[in-house]
Amino acid sequence: MSKISVLKFGGTSVKNIGRIHHVADVIARRSNQKCLVVVSAMGDTTDHLYSLAKQCATFPDKRELDLLLSTGEQVSIALLALTLRERGVKAKSYTGAQIGIATDNAHSTARITDICRDTLRAALEENDVVVVAGFQGLSEAGEVTTLGRGGSDTTAVALAAACGADTCDIYTDVDGIYTTDPNKISDAQILNSICYEEVLEMARVGAQVIHPRAVELAKEYGLQVRVRNTFKPDHPGTIINGGSNVERIRKVSGVAVDGNQAHVTFTRVPLEFPFMGTTIDCLSRENISVDMVSQNIDLASRTKCVSLAIKYEDVDHAIVCLNELKRLCGAGELTVDTEVAKVSVIGSGLGNSHETSATLLGILEDHGLYVKLFYCGESRISCLIPQASANHATALLHREFKLNECYTAPLEFVLTA
Amino acid sequence: MSKISVLKFGGTSVKNIGRIHHVADVIARRSNQKCLVVVSAMGDTTDHLYSLAKQCATFPDKRELDLLLSTGEQVSIALLALTLRERGVKAKSYTGAQIGIATDNAHSTARITDICRDTLRAALEENDVVVVAGFQGLSEAGEVTTLGRGGSDTTAVALAAACGADTCDIYTDVDGIYTTDPNKISDAQILNSICYEEVLEMARVGAQVIHPRAVELAKEYGLQVRVRNTFKPDHPGTIINGGSNVERIRKVSGVAVDGNQAHVTFTRVPLEFPFMGTTIDCLSRENISVDMVSQNIDLASRTKCVSLAIKYEDVDHAIVCLNELKRLCGAGELTVDTEVAKVSVIGSGLGNSHETSATLLGILEDHGLYVKLFYCGESRISCLIPQASANHATALLHREFKLNECYTAPLEFVLTA
Repeated sequence: MSKISVLKFGGTSVKNIGRIHHVADVIARRSNQKCLVVVSAMGDTTDHLYSLAKQCATFPDKRELDLLLSTGEQVSIALLALTLRERGVKAKSYTGAQIGIATDNAHSTARITDICRDTLRAALEENDVVVVAGFQGLSEAGEVTTLGRGGSDTTAVALAAACGADTCDIYTDVDGIYTTDPNKISDAQILNSICYEEVLEMARVGAQVIHPRAVELAKEYGLQVRVRNTFKPDHPGTIINGGSNVERIRKVSGVAVDGNQAHVTFTRVPLEFPFMGTTIDCLSRENISVDMVSQNIDLASRTKCVSLAIKYEDVDHAIVCLNELKRLCGAGELTVDTEVAKVSVIGSGLGNSHETSATLLGILEDHGLYVKLFYCGESRISCLIPQASANHATALLHREFKLNECYTAPLEFVLTA
Repeated sequence: MSKISVLKFGGTSVKNIGRIHHVADVIARRSNQKCLVVVSAMGDTTDHLYSLAKQCATFPDKRELDLLLSTGEQVSIALLALTLRERGVKAKSYTGAQIGIATDNAHSTARITDICRDTLRAALEENDVVVVAGFQGLSEAGEVTTLGRGGSDTTAVALAAACGADTCDIYTDVDGIYTTDPNKISDAQILNSICYEEVLEMARVGAQVIHPRAVELAKEYGLQVRVRNTFKPDHPGTIINGGSNVERIRKVSGVAVDGNQAHVTFTRVPLEFPFMGTTIDCLSRENISVDMVSQNIDLASRTKCVSLAIKYEDVDHAIVCLNELKRLCGAGELTVDTEVAKVSVIGSGLGNSHETSATLLGILEDHGLYVKLFYCGESRISCLIPQASANHATALLHREFKLNECYTAPLEFVLTA
């Protein structure tokens, strides 16, 4: 197949008819190339449909739910194709099933297992713009499935890989990926590029612009993803790639804050009880993830104190498990502090840089910010600190790692489309 | 297949979630039988989707429009199936494509060409209630098609025929088919039965409860159709059948008024010009139907006067054609009167009953109501009269033909479901 542009437009980009006309403008700018366009449902359609389902059933059957939710994208693809055709563009819409997106049978969280390249090729030969419904596919059982939240990003990247495109443009309502939340830190900068691992780490600590599954898929296929603003089509946005072809001019790419955390502490646990392993095993079996944990041993009392960070929404569920553990080990006392935040610096290769950890901890200590838990991974260093200090800590780290002076390539360098 | 109940619920019956719960109640009453349930889109969803399409394109592409409009029914089937499942009913929803409704390729006005009996049988074996999207199918080209307005009635009757049911219940928001418009004539009665031809004639003159295509299909398969009120599930409604098994106790079944008419008159047409044939031929080629026409010849002036009744919405289009005819015959004068109404009495076999025509014309003349055009067909007699007299004429005819004393069978006689 000849060179193909793959563009994905999220729900805010097709929120109403006016925006659909705007999206048609953006697509029309690519008229020199065949386009494969993936769209989400209009605005909050998916939420609205889900709320209707919840009014019909307490636990809606997932097969029926998928058939219901998939209509959201079916509406937006038809409307976009109509709008493009009205402008004389040879466009046609395809549902996930129609374009040959095969998935497993896991309704509501289906994974794409295959894309029929013949169907895709025929569609691209027949039309200049192929408009595809994101978020959906057809299972082996012949049923309509959905890929779960963020599924449209995954659809776009999978289709880009299937048709041999080298870039997938994800159009959204922000200019790109920022060094930190621009609503909190005024001199936050747009990154002109970032590598897959960094984006995945950002998503893991709550800063999500593109769905992690899509990034993982792009990484697997070595596909470049660009995050761009639908309403500023001249803005180059942020390129997500393997990072190898971009000179690495900084260690840290961003600072993220996740205020949706809880600090759980278990004191006076008998020393001989294998508490840490048992806890993490028990919580992970309940799908509660723990990425920060510490243990202090008091040899005098032959007890230990274990503390860990979990997501705020998992607290109630975790307490049930932990009380069971408390019963098992026959002692201990549980406290939960929800007035905490996880502040993270993200950068590929940080795990090898003790210097960054030292700098980070030094700055926080110099300013009297108490670190409750500390984590250092391959591409991320995180600290659990009091929630009240989170913005202060973010500002300090953002400045210290010179993210407010973030290097931005000139427009003409990046804008190739 | 064992005995199957086929039920169809229109848009007003599934207008909101509350009504969907009510429809689930009505279905649950049939729990002793397998049910095949056809539903329309919720409330005015189809109109809403169509208006969105019109905001995208002046003449929306019909293939895209069908993909768009078909989502309306896909939403309502999923919600109804969810509601039924929540009550423990083994229910599953099917789009037209999923249940195997094959159509021709005529997007927006597709005709059902086949129904896959194996798919239908498997669905009915697997489930107690099979919920099917009305109004849609899958074309030979593999595209989603819609059957046009009233298509859900047609879906229901076609499925009833395919699964060997002997009755198809069309649930709507009225009690059944009335002798005349109850909003205009207070003693209008519900007919407990009526034959296919009479319903088709009623539809032809603007009194439509069930779509004529569905009635024609029911007639073809000898299938009994019942029009019932969703909100009065104990009311027997009106049975539509061949009429043979019901003792004929009245000649006239109803009186209908169609105020949406225009009276077109062409005077001083040269006698030798074959005006009437040419006119009807010319109008029918433009899809303008004419069912009442008269011609008066003036031998003295060697001219004739031709007058005909057409639908009000066809007037502008018809005038273009008629002016062309006027140019061709080189003379004549055209007048259009839109202050007219067509009052019709409907009854199977009326064409053989000169007595009824005589009675009808006698009553109108006795009351000084001037008849501009007259038509007598197999199952209908119509008069074009001044619009201002339409209600008076209807009341007179309704009383004269004793429709206010309409025979109604006792409930227990008719209610078999």
